[in-house]
Amino acid sequence: MASQMARPRGPREAFGWAARDDSGHLSPFKFSRRVTGEEDVIFKVLYCGICHSDFHNIKNEWGGAMYPMVPGHEIVGVVTEVGTKVTKFKVGDKVGVGCLVGSCHSCENCANDLENYCRELILTYNSKYRDGITYGGYSDIMVVDEHFVVAIPDNLPLDGAAPLLCAGITVYSPLKFFGLDKPGLHLGVVGLGGLGHTAVKFAKAMGLKVTVISTSPGKKQEAVEHLGADSFLVSCDQEQMQSAMGTLDGIIDTVSAVHPLLPLIGLLKSHGKLVMVGAPEKPLELPVFPLLMGRKVVAGSGIGGLKETQEMINFASKHNITADIEVIPMDYVNTAMERLVKADVRYRFVIDIGNSLKPTA
Amino acid sequence: MASQMARPRGPREAFGWAARDDSGHLSPFKFSRRVTGEEDVIFKVLYCGICHSDFHNIKNEWGGAMYPMVPGHEIVGVVTEVGTKVTKFKVGDKVGVGCLVGSCHSCENCANDLENYCRELILTYNSKYRDGITYGGYSDIMVVDEHFVVAIPDNLPLDGAAPLLCAGITVYSPLKFFGLDKPGLHLGVVGLGGLGHTAVKFAKAMGLKVTVISTSPGKKQEAVEHLGADSFLVSCDQEQMQSAMGTLDGIIDTVSAVHPLLPLIGLLKSHGKLVMVGAPEKPLELPVFPLLMGRKVVAGSGIGGLKETQEMINFASKHNITADIEVIPMDYVNTAMERLVKADVRYRFVIDIGNSLKPTA
Repeated sequence: MASQMARPRGPREAFGWAARDDSGHLSPFKFSRRVTGEEDVIFKVLYCGICHSDFHNIKNEWGGAMYPMVPGHEIVGVVTEVGTKVTKFKVGDKVGVGCLVGSCHSCENCANDLENYCRELILTYNSKYRDGITYGGYSDIMVVDEHFVVAIPDNLPLDGAAPLLCAGITVYSPLKFFGLDKPGLHLGVVGLGGLGHTAVKFAKAMGLKVTVISTSPGKKQEAVEHLGADSFLVSCDQEQMQSAMGTLDGIIDTVSAVHPLLPLIGLLKSHGKLVMVGAPEKPLELPVFPLLMGRKVVAGSGIGGLKETQEMINFASKHNITADIEVIPMDYVNTAMERLVKADVRYRFVIDIGNSLKPTA
Repeated sequence: MASQMARPRGPREAFGWAARDDSGHLSPFKFSRRVTGEEDVIFKVLYCGICHSDFHNIKNEWGGAMYPMVPGHEIVGVVTEVGTKVTKFKVGDKVGVGCLVGSCHSCENCANDLENYCRELILTYNSKYRDGITYGGYSDIMVVDEHFVVAIPDNLPLDGAAPLLCAGITVYSPLKFFGLDKPGLHLGVVGLGGLGHTAVKFAKAMGLKVTVISTSPGKKQEAVEHLGADSFLVSCDQEQMQSAMGTLDGIIDTVSAVHPLLPLIGLLKSHGKLVMVGAPEKPLELPVFPLLMGRKVVAGSGIGGLKETQEMINFASKHNITADIEVIPMDYVNTAMERLVKADVRYRFVIDIGNSLKPTA
């Protein structure tokens, strides 16, 4: 009887902010979350980071937008209820959800803890799910299959931890997979935004030498003095770039604008790896000869699987890594989006959902 | 005294065919090879393959041409003399020389048997060397540091073995390095020319499933029935390509013309590798999002080191792999170049230097 009592019969009322069309303007929105399934965790959302992809999605710049759209996939909060078969979490636990809330569980990628590369992956928002479409973390509660929920250790502040669930795993995963996590290796990080500044922190914690590569000379002080990068290259300074040719073992390229790859390939040693984690909308120019001359690699990497996301969070906990953030109230979100496009944030907006999201009548 | 007698004092007279300017026209040419050094091997050239790069070089299409230029870097012959410190070869041995005749011997790449990625590598022709510039294998004799000479096992016919020294190692090396040599893996080979047909042979001998991808439907029969490929895709047939999406573990792309990468990246499974071994002169369009969605890799690979070249030749010997060739006399070389551009050869021209190169007065 007790177990039955704990599960309400109807769908659960929820409240958030949604875009209604490709203007991307966000406004209050009432909707329903599904009934808690046996393997579901319900949690009260406390913070949600604003990822660049949220901006692209609400404006339907990548196509496939389903409105009303509640964005947000850097979500942390506290568990308020668990399904009868949930084993990993209990009420009161601090938890997080990133970009994924479902996958097929039967393909080779799923079998290898790479749900992020499952062809049937279900994204945290704007995806089709068994209860309709998915709604993200710009909302008061989440109902998520426990497989896609990670535990947030007590020592990590929840607001600074939120962006790790997308930005963090996006840079952590390729560092591990491409062998760029060995102490003493020399890593380049292109772009010093939400992804880039997190990459610097993880790479330094792994014992790497880190060079930040940016178009903005003004970011040098911040990169070196605050984030702990070892050096800084202005990508449009030919002399600086020339002097650094052939010095990097790998590069994490976080830039999602169209940009030249040739100078970056030139910075790599033989067998060096340029890993793209930003997604420019148009194809980039790939010069092939420079790849041949040093058996170099250009690769892509997209977020990470759940097992690795938990590993990343645990690594962040051990090394006290969080994102540098600007916490904002819910009703500031449209202004934040405008500032985001201008890269006017160091380095991630995080919405204080817990204290500022107020249901309207 | 005997040792002194064996070493002539002056430079050694040689004879070959050279291009005099960027018309690329080849004609008879007398020149000198250096005095046999202590670590040098002299061999009489019997066969030399015609590589596509010979065509580009004699016409100075890649820049840096030094005329007169004697091309040729798929060279086999028989040793006629060895320097006093030569340990690996003796008079009468069958030997080969590929693209390299020198490197620094002190960098990290050289230390790892990757002379091909040494920044001071010396190419077999059109490079600066201690005795002037290097001249290639369209000539009667070669004088080469034994480190850059490989042994050709007796069971390999010398004419069919010659192209292995460039085309063979160019495809063998990436199969090994990128882990595409495991039985049961599914490999795509793009382009069925000198490199491509050799790639099919090596991959089949390694136990791979091989799909040839070509713009020419007419090559299907040849690929499947003669070369032993398992299947064939016409790259411009959208239906065929669509049905093969996500099926390949790796691709060796031998095409040196500008061509679209998006369909090839689509053919790869998650974590698949597209390895470029052809060198298009202009940059290719690289769509980044498809790389991210499956942690895919686009890489380059250029020939191979000497240790691996010997390993490749030994593998070819064990599996009776040679290139499919059309043997031509020396004075047919200019015609052969014209046919080469039109891809009118199956699959490699090899010049019968031993029987057809005649010194003129």
